[in-house]
Amino acid sequence: MTVSTPERPFATLGIVGLGLIGASLAAALRKRESRLRILGADQSDATLARALELGYIDEGCTDLLDLCRRSDVVVLAVPVLSLRNVFEQLAPALADGRTVLTDVGSVKGVVRDAAEAVFGQVPAWLVPGHPIAGSEFSGVDAANPDLYHCHQVILTPGSDTDPTATACVRALWEQVEATVQLMTVDRHDEVLAATSHLPHLLAFALVDSLAQESEKYEIFHYAAGGFRDFTRIAASDPTMWHDIFLANDQATLDVLDRYMDHLHTVRAALAAGDGEALHTVFRRAKHARDYFSRILDERTG
Amino acid sequence: MTVSTPERPFATLGIVGLGLIGASLAAALRKRESRLRILGADQSDATLARALELGYIDEGCTDLLDLCRRSDVVVLAVPVLSLRNVFEQLAPALADGRTVLTDVGSVKGVVRDAAEAVFGQVPAWLVPGHPIAGSEFSGVDAANPDLYHCHQVILTPGSDTDPTATACVRALWEQVEATVQLMTVDRHDEVLAATSHLPHLLAFALVDSLAQESEKYEIFHYAAGGFRDFTRIAASDPTMWHDIFLANDQATLDVLDRYMDHLHTVRAALAAGDGEALHTVFRRAKHARDYFSRILDERTG
Repeated sequence: MTVSTPERPFATLGIVGLGLIGASLAAALRKRESRLRILGADQSDATLARALELGYIDEGCTDLLDLCRRSDVVVLAVPVLSLRNVFEQLAPALADGRTVLTDVGSVKGVVRDAAEAVFGQVPAWLVPGHPIAGSEFSGVDAANPDLYHCHQVILTPGSDTDPTATACVRALWEQVEATVQLMTVDRHDEVLAATSHLPHLLAFALVDSLAQESEKYEIFHYAAGGFRDFTRIAASDPTMWHDIFLANDQATLDVLDRYMDHLHTVRAALAAGDGEALHTVFRRAKHARDYFSRILDERTG
Repeated sequence: MTVSTPERPFATLGIVGLGLIGASLAAALRKRESRLRILGADQSDATLARALELGYIDEGCTDLLDLCRRSDVVVLAVPVLSLRNVFEQLAPALADGRTVLTDVGSVKGVVRDAAEAVFGQVPAWLVPGHPIAGSEFSGVDAANPDLYHCHQVILTPGSDTDPTATACVRALWEQVEATVQLMTVDRHDEVLAATSHLPHLLAFALVDSLAQESEKYEIFHYAAGGFRDFTRIAASDPTMWHDIFLANDQATLDVLDRYMDHLHTVRAALAAGDGEALHTVFRRAKHARDYFSRILDERTG
């Protein structure tokens, strides 16, 4: 079993960053018995040792240039605001264009900007990507070999991207049972602002708002399942989300403003006791949410 | 096995309304092999027949006064805005004070108001209650005999409530493995506005907002697990929630306004690129949400 494409066979994969996303990709490839050789790198020696111990990677590398030169494909699974710095470090090893580079960042505009800043343009061998999967847990020990099963991965190749590089990254994600979609950078950032970044912002703000006004968190003692699900994402990694919001500030502000306008309208209906207006909003929302449930059901078979 | 208390033995329970909440209570009592006789009533003949067929009730009643006269305890599991009408219908059968009455409404202020309007005061034999349990599904076929297991039920007896009536309703809910808490009416409505009504309003508004601006719901195709959990409650019954918001408008507006103020602050931090302010909010929210997770873990053992 191999993830190579006919046009671009590859035998060695490098993964830089063995947090939840990077380690889950390694674990997923391992579970599917890929004969791919996986090189791993991480800022933390303990994480690197743990990934080796768990059998996720074949070899831990401390030299990023060495990892890059020995890999046919390199996945950068680092915080999105670190990408520019990593691009700078890797540049000497990428100059020959032999290695395909991809990333997993939740925002793609900043990846384009970082690539243009470091390489002068978005290189033909860079295929920005984003697996839409995650968890409120983080770190190598939270890795899940089925994290990408039936999940979507969005790739945002540009007009100058080498199609064999895109095919190669597509094959990698399909190997771990993800569904790959292509999209423009700007559309990706809009879509993710609406379906992921905004909900996280609303959940963080709600939990913080209630915590601020509740003596010793007393109010949480009366919360139940609806609140649990609604606020699960507020337990996500604050540093990662800090990065995502700074990286996707404009698209998030746009959708947040439209949401706040809508919330003002709903508030006005509630203040006026306009039950018919509220009922209309709730009915439309339920209709859309039921549609979304059917998509999810179809996706997971 | 019986749910009677020493002071107030009871053999017959009446349940008016066999939707998710009423039918789940009947199913839960059945599962625990109570020898209690359960009389059921519902506006829908089909629902009543189905509850009989599923063995949740012993007998279906079409005459509410008859059900009430034959029951030691009556649970009103009807939409909260219907309670006043039901009180009026039942009043002749309740006049002797022999029957304990409780309800399951998500808002308790309107129950107090309805009781005062119909009975002149909150009667000693009325113990308003609210099981904090539910699901985005509704109807007798969604009934779950374990819906109340490890869930909380808040009772809001007043200063004039007969303590044996409160003990009786407490015993009923404890029989189905719920934890009973006593609270004032106003505190209940504040707490629920914050932990349940506001999250529902935010989720309905978000899904509706995205649905309005997305051609053929296209955007939902890219949403994943975080969005699924965050918006699950937006699939809830629009009519029930219409009632709840109209019934708890003031407490909901109060907590909504505080939330919107906080959201404006978070928006300003995002617009200003103030990463430290965002990080502080996210950290505090995660800390509070992790605390809530521990409460849930302890509650379910």
